[in-house]
Amino acid sequence: MVDPTAPRIAIAQYAFPVGELDANTQRIIDTVAAARDELQADLVVFPELAVSGYPPDDLLLRSDFLAAVEASLERIAAACTGGITAVVGAPVERGGVRNAALVFAQGREVACAFKRCLPSYSVFDDNRHFVAGQAPCVVSVAGSRVGVTVCEDIWAPAPAADAVADGAEVVLAINASPFHDGKPAERQAVVAGRARANGVPVVYANMVGGHDEVVYDGGSFAVDAQGSVTARLSGFAEELAVFERGEGGGWFGGIAERAEGMPALYQALVRATADYVHGNGFSGVVLGLSGGIDSALTAAVAVDALGAARVQAVMMPSPYTAQRSLDDARAAAETLGIAYHEIPIEGMMADYERALSPLFSGYPVDVTEENIQARIRGNCLMALSNKWGLMLLAAGNKSELAVGYATLYGDMCGGFAPLKDVYKTDVYRLAAYRNALGPAVPEAIIEREPTAELRADQRDQDSLPPYPVLDALLRQYLEEERPEHAIEVDGLDPAERCRVIRLLYRNEYKRRQAAPGVKVTRRAFGRDRRYPITSGWSGCQQ
Amino acid sequence: MVDPTAPRIAIAQYAFPVGELDANTQRIIDTVAAARDELQADLVVFPELAVSGYPPDDLLLRSDFLAAVEASLERIAAACTGGITAVVGAPVERGGVRNAALVFAQGREVACAFKRCLPSYSVFDDNRHFVAGQAPCVVSVAGSRVGVTVCEDIWAPAPAADAVADGAEVVLAINASPFHDGKPAERQAVVAGRARANGVPVVYANMVGGHDEVVYDGGSFAVDAQGSVTARLSGFAEELAVFERGEGGGWFGGIAERAEGMPALYQALVRATADYVHGNGFSGVVLGLSGGIDSALTAAVAVDALGAARVQAVMMPSPYTAQRSLDDARAAAETLGIAYHEIPIEGMMADYERALSPLFSGYPVDVTEENIQARIRGNCLMALSNKWGLMLLAAGNKSELAVGYATLYGDMCGGFAPLKDVYKTDVYRLAAYRNALGPAVPEAIIEREPTAELRADQRDQDSLPPYPVLDALLRQYLEEERPEHAIEVDGLDPAERCRVIRLLYRNEYKRRQAAPGVKVTRRAFGRDRRYPITSGWSGCQQ
Repeated sequence: MVDPTAPRIAIAQYAFPVGELDANTQRIIDTVAAARDELQADLVVFPELAVSGYPPDDLLLRSDFLAAVEASLERIAAACTGGITAVVGAPVERGGVRNAALVFAQGREVACAFKRCLPSYSVFDDNRHFVAGQAPCVVSVAGSRVGVTVCEDIWAPAPAADAVADGAEVVLAINASPFHDGKPAERQAVVAGRARANGVPVVYANMVGGHDEVVYDGGSFAVDAQGSVTARLSGFAEELAVFERGEGGGWFGGIAERAEGMPALYQALVRATADYVHGNGFSGVVLGLSGGIDSALTAAVAVDALGAARVQAVMMPSPYTAQRSLDDARAAAETLGIAYHEIPIEGMMADYERALSPLFSGYPVDVTEENIQARIRGNCLMALSNKWGLMLLAAGNKSELAVGYATLYGDMCGGFAPLKDVYKTDVYRLAAYRNALGPAVPEAIIEREPTAELRADQRDQDSLPPYPVLDALLRQYLEEERPEHAIEVDGLDPAERCRVIRLLYRNEYKRRQAAPGVKVTRRAFGRDRRYPITSGWSGCQQ
Repeated sequence: MVDPTAPRIAIAQYAFPVGELDANTQRIIDTVAAARDELQADLVVFPELAVSGYPPDDLLLRSDFLAAVEASLERIAAACTGGITAVVGAPVERGGVRNAALVFAQGREVACAFKRCLPSYSVFDDNRHFVAGQAPCVVSVAGSRVGVTVCEDIWAPAPAADAVADGAEVVLAINASPFHDGKPAERQAVVAGRARANGVPVVYANMVGGHDEVVYDGGSFAVDAQGSVTARLSGFAEELAVFERGEGGGWFGGIAERAEGMPALYQALVRATADYVHGNGFSGVVLGLSGGIDSALTAAVAVDALGAARVQAVMMPSPYTAQRSLDDARAAAETLGIAYHEIPIEGMMADYERALSPLFSGYPVDVTEENIQARIRGNCLMALSNKWGLMLLAAGNKSELAVGYATLYGDMCGGFAPLKDVYKTDVYRLAAYRNALGPAVPEAIIEREPTAELRADQRDQDSLPPYPVLDALLRQYLEEERPEHAIEVDGLDPAERCRVIRLLYRNEYKRRQAAPGVKVTRRAFGRDRRYPITSGWSGCQQ
């Protein structure tokens, strides 16, 4: 039973790329018209900072950028006529720069909410760029009193409570809330709790799409005053949909499945990769295939992000490359239907050896020779990236990046690293998930023991604990911030535990020069986890 | 005329490396004893976060790290006996994590100031890690009332004013205040103004030494109630010295020269390089010499930081390398007295060409071939870095990094980039300054027109505006954040202005993977200037 006396609320769950002011503005204007004319909406809601994209970072320190946003807002205001009200996120300079939700109706701004809770943790730097708002914002839309909040506001008690105290019958939350594994459920629990605490429905609108090191998963939803979900848009996809008030006073719509588990993780990688590649002006990618699972899964992600025709794979065998690796790499490319090339690097290796031998004389063979190989491959791949105009993808995963089991300027080369925040054990899970949708990663690759093949008979486990052990340690140490002595992992002795933790600290310098990748866990290397390079601390006793 | 009724204040202007809890703690304990027993000080003052080093960044999110700091503070408290009072900076967990100045006397903590003003701009992220203090802290030391403030506090009116309202006769400011060109004068003006406004002397104690992307310049000083400087320690050097109250009520000591201009800039580079190399466990460095001024100056900085015996130079000629470049590189090495090696790369270039030619067929020669050369050099230098256990220094400057005139994974390889925040025009000024101290950069190198020598007859000015023009633009755009249309540079037309600004934005991806370097200007790439990689904005009309 739809309540025709309450506003029909359209959610514009779209991607709004950072800095694309003109395109974002035009899209907002077009969407206001569509929501009004095609969906008969009374209210259309856009995500946090929809005009500028989120986060614009230090662009917010520039007066010309803020002036351009103001000009965009004037155009948007003028388009909000014919009975529709729009809530639009944008940065505005009013007593300092504010992260604002502007409310437009009748061709002008009628109200404005300034974000009150400014996050400065994880990937967020809102305190660097914004001055906090103090007051709630409640507006009348089609006979209902609507409270307006911005993102972090809904994670704290005061903003919603203050809006309700000011008469709000429903609370809107506009967001650019980044994904991580488990975040959609966490978000829903918080919002449901807020609705129950205040006895009002909440409508939660989220951004979608990848931006550099984060991806917004959409999944906009509504809960009623009891905290039950009454509507949900899909995860990781753009959607414009209407929620309308029904029985019990909640806002109802279709209820899409909540993004969870491996499907969500995989979609996050695909969406982030597609948006990073396209957003930086590339139409396709090149990547190295080693015959191992990381590069095979990276290729699958690339194919699902860009299409098989836009992915070029290159196998670069050395004398340490097994025939099996060549076979498996070729099979991976064939399975995905992508172009496959081979560049043997033995000649180049010999040439470096010749050139460097006078300076190497007296020194034993060590990891140097392995790194030279990896860097020859990096040089070849970058050359193809340059020559073909394709972005190079790096295939490294979180587990190896954590302990520095990767060559800087070698296999770490790339414009983007889709698996950067994916533990090796999840690489296997994702491959299994993707294969269930259709063949992508050959079984031979999944079954093979991991090896870098940079010297004879090399196995990852000669240098590292087994990946299930390593990943359990990393999850506890990185995501839970457990002290070293409180790490509990079967099969990991204290000395080995310390060795791994020391490796983690010692390799910060490599990570600082790593390609960006997308955050998909509670604590990602990069923008999320900020550590000194030079540091005397490990917290280890051994 | 020394006033014997007032406290003798010792300033411990020392380096306190991040995470070196045990070493920092021992040094504090030893210094307390030295100040008391050798200098007859009543009060000894340590910099901001002396126990942990500053900034510890996300180490502050770890309970084990904070617990280890607490254990250090207990040891320090126990050492503060025999009539001395110590003010020690440390992070402490008290109603949230605080950036505290702890006051120890009689073997225990007697007072505690929590930093009230938490900077979240430039290189600072204090809001990410700390909860702000609310109240002033005034303690009695040897009959005087001393107000205690922490760093940013002295840049705002309230903390000093509140301390004086609570009876402070002198205000202490403990700092970890990073250097940039002009900062010492700026700092002195602010502190002098604060003293005048409150009618009290201020004693300003600063950290010294490099930490990753910042360098603390020391230069601790005192001003009297009229804002006149009554004491100053040297710039960029460790010192333990006493200030004592004299006529007019100020605290007096020797007055060293304030660090300014090219001498300060050069010392900043040397100190930052030495501390980064040693702090990361390296005893020496390797670097490429091209025959150009950037690498020659980098070598001079390395020699002054580490000693000539710890610097290895490598010249890697290609067919595009002029004989003059070889001569100049060798002369630079000879002038500095460093080891010099040559590795011709022609054979490796030919080998890449052979290996890649099937995949390059149909494509014209372009920048790809130049990048391959630069990356061969990067691979050779990294191989020597690995084999010899020396850190590779990158020689790039700020001007070329701004516009992307550098090869990622090529000449951008390195653990540290001493000139990363030095404009090309300042590279020349620094070379002249350094040569005035003693021969370092051969005149032939200074006089030569800049060239990357990656193809025949290449000159930097074929791709870029003349460096004086480029640098003037960059200073206005980066440091003053001027809008594009407000840039005023002689000899720069609007189309060229836009082209450079677009290059600046487009090359953020390279800078994100660049080696760290030290901030020496008002706005440095890296931790200081945080921009999105993917961004549609340039603010340019053309």
